[in-house]
Amino acid sequence: MSVLVIGSIAFDTIETSQARKERILGGAANFASAAASHFSKVQLVGIVGSDYPEDWFAKLRSRGVDTSGVERARGKSFFWEGRYAPDFGSRETLDTQLGVFENYSPTLPRSYRSPAIAFLGNIAPDLQSTVLSQLEPGTVTAMDTMNLWLDMNRDLVFQLVEKVEILLVNDEEAMDMTSECHPMSAARKLATMGPRIVVVKMGGHGAVVVHEGKPFFAPGYPVELVVDPTGAGDSFAGAFLGSLAAERQIDRRAVNRALVYGNAVASYVVEHFEPAAVLEMTRRTILERFIYIRELIDY
Amino acid sequence: MSVLVIGSIAFDTIETSQARKERILGGAANFASAAASHFSKVQLVGIVGSDYPEDWFAKLRSRGVDTSGVERARGKSFFWEGRYAPDFGSRETLDTQLGVFENYSPTLPRSYRSPAIAFLGNIAPDLQSTVLSQLEPGTVTAMDTMNLWLDMNRDLVFQLVEKVEILLVNDEEAMDMTSECHPMSAARKLATMGPRIVVVKMGGHGAVVVHEGKPFFAPGYPVELVVDPTGAGDSFAGAFLGSLAAERQIDRRAVNRALVYGNAVASYVVEHFEPAAVLEMTRRTILERFIYIRELIDY
Repeated sequence: MSVLVIGSIAFDTIETSQARKERILGGAANFASAAASHFSKVQLVGIVGSDYPEDWFAKLRSRGVDTSGVERARGKSFFWEGRYAPDFGSRETLDTQLGVFENYSPTLPRSYRSPAIAFLGNIAPDLQSTVLSQLEPGTVTAMDTMNLWLDMNRDLVFQLVEKVEILLVNDEEAMDMTSECHPMSAARKLATMGPRIVVVKMGGHGAVVVHEGKPFFAPGYPVELVVDPTGAGDSFAGAFLGSLAAERQIDRRAVNRALVYGNAVASYVVEHFEPAAVLEMTRRTILERFIYIRELIDY
Repeated sequence: MSVLVIGSIAFDTIETSQARKERILGGAANFASAAASHFSKVQLVGIVGSDYPEDWFAKLRSRGVDTSGVERARGKSFFWEGRYAPDFGSRETLDTQLGVFENYSPTLPRSYRSPAIAFLGNIAPDLQSTVLSQLEPGTVTAMDTMNLWLDMNRDLVFQLVEKVEILLVNDEEAMDMTSECHPMSAARKLATMGPRIVVVKMGGHGAVVVHEGKPFFAPGYPVELVVDPTGAGDSFAGAFLGSLAAERQIDRRAVNRALVYGNAVASYVVEHFEPAAVLEMTRRTILERFIYIRELIDY
């Protein structure tokens, strides 16, 4: 069973208090599909310009990611530049260039229309909506969003939330969407708005999932040195959904396991630059971190 | 079995973005003993001036707290004034007046020298040391500390850490004491320095305990509205130790249970002003929050 992932495939320029990296690989879909590839087959959907390195897609393919849903267009790939505060508690967007993403309207290849789970990554809600309408009935759908879309097109975001089975957002977005003051209360309220499963990510602290009204919390794996948090949330989503897609049944146990996997993979992402690190994470590292988190809450 | 608690018995003036409270009751020993009283008998040790209301001690006594170890001296009681940032992420001390605490040298009544657990609350390490030397061998000892004492008398703090069985500190203190970058790594390192049990409190996020080398994490109970975080850490310690003192055996299960009780009680403290609220917390509220946290990590 496979996970379809749509989102940005981008170049990022990242500035932290320790380093500056120019035009490295990034984008929500790259991080999410690299993370999901450890658990299930992946179908990647997105668009790049003529400037994007083909060998990255070759690398993805070697790990079981189908990249035939990636369009290559004349022009420049999506570009984002950001600067993190020294404690990584916040970040500032310095530049965003949509490039070929500006006029993108995704069309799913026929073989992409009935994945086990379709992940509408963090892109404009009208693009998410376009993809949603192309999926076969019965596909489990998941979405992420961000404050930008909540500010620009709040109504459409909420229409989508009503339609999807799984919602994954971070704590700030969850509180913004519900006017609740605590991520857990926000998660519980979001779970009444349609999705069967709501995940609220709390950065290094961990994440909470509400499934059929019941919350489960998994703490973050203790990261010694944060290098670059970019893509952590996307990788979390990729690991969560990849793990779910590999399960026979999406029950409470599967959901809780997926949440721990999400935390395990995300903790590794923040220790590295670029999605290649996520792709190259070993099965052993994933399992070690899974077990660590699992034992941390073994009452 | 009883918990001996020594620490400040104080007046606090608290300023938050919502309210200002003048000379309300406070002090680590008040919060800790009020919290511990829900689980076991308590023996309170400290000093107050002639200005401290006797009816507060009557209230404590009515809940099983022995206050015969509290000295009343001529002069003023300990006073602290602080202001919290609007998000409660930090606080600023505006005034500290030691009053009768300045020349205090605690002498334990004979009946206080062999409690189940003695809690050396957050006071000067030489006072903690004085109390420690008066306890019968076999008493389980626990201590808290704070950055002030680590700055002023670091060596003595570490000498005490080597001697006690249980250390409870917050994340910043733990990282300061170990030069580790993550509260969990700090907890593990502190656990190699002597104490059999190390608890690192992470505010609203929860707390981790390392017991015989193994960490266990309990998330915070979701607090809707923070009113005043003063005393949350002390109440956490009181509940943790009170719960432990009521156990037949301090094993892993007892320690994990105590950690969940610590979080349950601390979450209530931050929703209220003054230690009287802790004292009046109902058994039902404690249990509800205990079960909520317990279920949150039920994998």
